Amino acid sequence: MKNINIALLGAGTVGSGVIGILQENKEVIVKRLYKKTGEEYNISIKKILIRNPSKYPEIPSELVTTTFEDIENDDTINIVVELMGGKQPATDYMLRAMKAGKHVVTANKLAIAQSNGAFEEASKKYNVKFMFEASVAGTIPVVRVIEDSLTANKINRISGIVNGTTNFILTKMEKENLDFDSALKLAQQLGYAEADPSSDIDGDDAMYKIAILSHLAYDKSIDLSNIDKTGLASVTKEDLDNAKENGCTIKYIAESALTSDDDVKITVSPQVLPLTHPLAGVEGATNAVYLYCDNAGEVMLQGQGAGSRPTASAVVSDILNIIENI
Amino acid sequence: MKNINIALLGAGTVGSGVIGILQENKEVIVKRLYKKTGEEYNISIKKILIRNPSKYPEIPSELVTTTFEDIENDDTINIVVELMGGKQPATDYMLRAMKAGKHVVTANKLAIAQSNGAFEEASKKYNVKFMFEASVAGTIPVVRVIEDSLTANKINRISGIVNGTTNFILTKMEKENLDFDSALKLAQQLGYAEADPSSDIDGDDAMYKIAILSHLAYDKSIDLSNIDKTGLASVTKEDLDNAKENGCTIKYIAESALTSDDDVKITVSPQVLPLTHPLAGVEGATNAVYLYCDNAGEVMLQGQGAGSRPTASAVVSDILNIIENI
Repeated sequence: MKNINIALLGAGTVGSGVIGILQENKEVIVKRLYKKTGEEYNISIKKILIRNPSKYPEIPSELVTTTFEDIENDDTINIVVELMGGKQPATDYMLRAMKAGKHVVTANKLAIAQSNGAFEEASKKYNVKFMFEASVAGTIPVVRVIEDSLTANKINRISGIVNGTTNFILTKMEKENLDFDSALKLAQQLGYAEADPSSDIDGDDAMYKIAILSHLAYDKSIDLSNIDKTGLASVTKEDLDNAKENGCTIKYIAESALTSDDDVKITVSPQVLPLTHPLAGVEGATNAVYLYCDNAGEVMLQGQGAGSRPTASAVVSDILNIIENI
Repeated sequence: MKNINIALLGAGTVGSGVIGILQENKEVIVKRLYKKTGEEYNISIKKILIRNPSKYPEIPSELVTTTFEDIENDDTINIVVELMGGKQPATDYMLRAMKAGKHVVTANKLAIAQSNGAFEEASKKYNVKFMFEASVAGTIPVVRVIEDSLTANKINRISGIVNGTTNFILTKMEKENLDFDSALKLAQQLGYAEADPSSDIDGDDAMYKIAILSHLAYDKSIDLSNIDKTGLASVTKEDLDNAKENGCTIKYIAESALTSDDDVKITVSPQVLPLTHPLAGVEGATNAVYLYCDNAGEVMLQGQGAGSRPTASAVVSDILNIIENI
């Protein structure tokens, strides 16, 4: 029996999903690990970093800490799962965790896209894994597919709907005749949009995601300031009506391509698409990503782009991948 | 510099694709392996088993062998790639290759589905890898996604279009008003169907694929004789017209589900689907697979189901995965 101890940084939506999956699917997870490694694993969450423990009375107090040093200095912790979001202190904590010899799993697209390769470097330097499947397109395993499955290919172009909030808003505007503000309000009421929805609406969220995928696919460093980004708020009900009259729809598309001079061009913008376009039918909070490959042709992946369990599914798969390779 | 020597069994459509990819994408492949492993690899095809060497004058004669023992007894060969198809001698050769300490990659759905777990056993017994991404749905990385990405989930149901030939025929019957025989003839002319198309048309090909996916997803042995299979030839032009009049289409669907008593029910059959069904829009030789998961929700993968390069892309990704883990 091998013990794996995990520390969570943050106990919000995704964190509670991770705790839930590790409890509910414990049996099938242990069985799969045994099949792959021949070892029996006991996976425990040992510490959870929470700023305001009073907000989470359901979490046993012996698991809770308010100081990162408790995790950093605990040599029994193998994997740190960062789910706080935001650039700092998340970036600092992840780098320190790796320096302390711990593997890191994160869903933090902002921190990765703004890291200038610091996480990759630390992962190599300290010989630990840094995994981030959940940072792009929720449950869709697009990071792993690029890194492990399409390795026989040059990827030339990526195009996708990677922000569920804006896709939900567009779908509601189109199908239920709402204007932008009403659709946004509905998205907030249903939990698809944050109280401050600017990162989704302005396109930052989609920009971080397409930057991460582009870096992986083309093996180039991506300068966020070169990304051509247009927010969603410019789209009116009339635009959607016009599109419909012409057999089209409007989708919020993140895309990137290798240019002829081996540079990368990235755009994030609302686009008028014919209804026959493969992304035209992707509705609500669903995400979809097309990868255009020299040998494999077009490969498309689709699934839930957000939500507690779908995102936590990607986090836990990263955790299990680390355990298999420890 | 580490040398990896590969032997191919068969040099047909997929084999020539593997040779082509390893040559054309050599640089990017070596770079990716270096990034992951810190090692420089020199990957060579050392032997190709061909029954009639005169049929392949373009292959250098020093690579060609007509006897499997030349490969089996060559200790410098690390990986055997089986692309002959058919149950025997392919099954025998793969088992012997593993016994001789060689990793095996195959696209042979028939041999796997009829193996009763013999390949898994041999892989464990001789501590070598047995990989088969290309055996199901061509370029779509559905095997790896089930095995490595959805590991936090119980998969409850699988539904997909996994045979490109029958989907091509149905699409042509529907869009170009052809009857079954004319559509089949066209598929044969364009290379989408074999001269003897019975494995596609009768549903055996789809049956093997859904059996392989079901075994992986549910971790249960699958008895092929329990699969409820209906061939495509029963579908007439009138059936498609009737479906169209009712806002539907007909697709050749392979699906499986865990039953309430923890058994597996598998069916392969033409199904009338509403146009709003997610598989209704999958046309031509494209394959698509939906995986229904407890945490991730619905995950869909789509791509080319056959063809030299798309299938070879999956084969080469398996080869690279083995090299990374050697």
